[in-house]
Amino acid sequence: MILVTNDDGIVAPGIKALIEVASKFGEVLVVAPDAPQSGQGHAITITKPLKLRKVDLYDGVTSYECSGTPVDCVKLAKNVLLKGQTIDLCVSGINHGSNASINILYSGTMSAAMEASLEGIDSIGFSLLDYAFDADFTHAKVIASQMIEHLLKNKLQHCKLLNVNIPKGPDIRGIKVCRQAKGHWIEEFQEGLDPRGEKYYWLTGRFQNNDDGEDTDIFALSQNYVSVVPSGFDLTAYDAILPLKQLENLS
Amino acid sequence: MILVTNDDGIVAPGIKALIEVASKFGEVLVVAPDAPQSGQGHAITITKPLKLRKVDLYDGVTSYECSGTPVDCVKLAKNVLLKGQTIDLCVSGINHGSNASINILYSGTMSAAMEASLEGIDSIGFSLLDYAFDADFTHAKVIASQMIEHLLKNKLQHCKLLNVNIPKGPDIRGIKVCRQAKGHWIEEFQEGLDPRGEKYYWLTGRFQNNDDGEDTDIFALSQNYVSVVPSGFDLTAYDAILPLKQLENLS
Repeated sequence: MILVTNDDGIVAPGIKALIEVASKFGEVLVVAPDAPQSGQGHAITITKPLKLRKVDLYDGVTSYECSGTPVDCVKLAKNVLLKGQTIDLCVSGINHGSNASINILYSGTMSAAMEASLEGIDSIGFSLLDYAFDADFTHAKVIASQMIEHLLKNKLQHCKLLNVNIPKGPDIRGIKVCRQAKGHWIEEFQEGLDPRGEKYYWLTGRFQNNDDGEDTDIFALSQNYVSVVPSGFDLTAYDAILPLKQLENLS
Repeated sequence: MILVTNDDGIVAPGIKALIEVASKFGEVLVVAPDAPQSGQGHAITITKPLKLRKVDLYDGVTSYECSGTPVDCVKLAKNVLLKGQTIDLCVSGINHGSNASINILYSGTMSAAMEASLEGIDSIGFSLLDYAFDADFTHAKVIASQMIEHLLKNKLQHCKLLNVNIPKGPDIRGIKVCRQAKGHWIEEFQEGLDPRGEKYYWLTGRFQNNDDGEDTDIFALSQNYVSVVPSGFDLTAYDAILPLKQLENLS
């Protein structure tokens, strides 16, 4: 069983492309948000109930839209719809836009895949470096197909999650296995007045790479390679443990 | 300048306790959600505008409530309210409930602190292992005070974020600097029918520790120690890079 989800919502062209690819390799279940959920990160819904509705969007593929976040979709798929069944692979995306570098933290697409990986399920988040609704997913589908086929034959050993970003193309030079680049967002808030005259702030900004390493996802993408970052969920800064032992003397 | 935020909302007793502590050490700005935002993870608001409203809740402390997520609060504080000013420290919490182990991923409290750390600001997320609204923050305030004082005197060197969890007490044995324990949530969805007869699913569950290490946050807390996990934002699974180089031959 292959679980497919995303954060752009169940009608996004990117998930349609991913469903087409995944369906070649076995039975597929789609559980995806009923509305766009970009930037939802690892959010879960705890203070209100969730709805799941079966939809008939993709021929021969059982599909549900969910009122919650991308991570909620994975939790509902695993614990309700596929309870007791083995999920061989979870694929999330294909996201409209990059999830390289620290964008893995903000991305609903990557958080959904990470949630599955937390449960020991091999997972891949796919992103295409094109935000357009009518982006061309042709070459992204070829990459996704190769990756899915490989992972179904060769289980992931040293981690359970791959963050795969695909250049806009068309002339892609190959695949690079990389580390997450150091970077951050330079934010500006667009300020304005709402119809009632109350001030509002609307988030906008641009990503800045702060990493001159040639082994990063951002560098690979800049060279027109597909970036693959093996990813985990342990945020411990191990190098800092020993130097910070002095804190144990505070009390 | 010390920035204070949380995810339980600007009126939660936990943030009141933290404001009282932080105010002893210098000028404080509070920017916190106008409603509870537990489980929001690293969510940001991109598809709608945000509101900031000045509130008069804490004597002598400039405070704003924000319509967005905890991470939005930090972004607005840094880029709008404190634009161009130095933030010496960001403290988030005191959360009502544990954020140990993988709960750092789901926690709005920790994600707010992580967002500040991404900007190079020394940051601490504080959590008390007591979900009750009327939890006793007396000993948590003592710990928070010691940590804040220490970090204002000694900038963090090897990481920019501390995940501090405090046992319910009262007999706390000391502080342990630890790594994040491996664990996951065993979920169950409570199913029911809404007033219109439509099925709903409501997330519930219990945390399970899968880590028998004695150097973890979960172990320290079980022994009645405060746990301090130095944390980063690089999710790369470095051990997996070399074994996965074979993926570069796919294309």
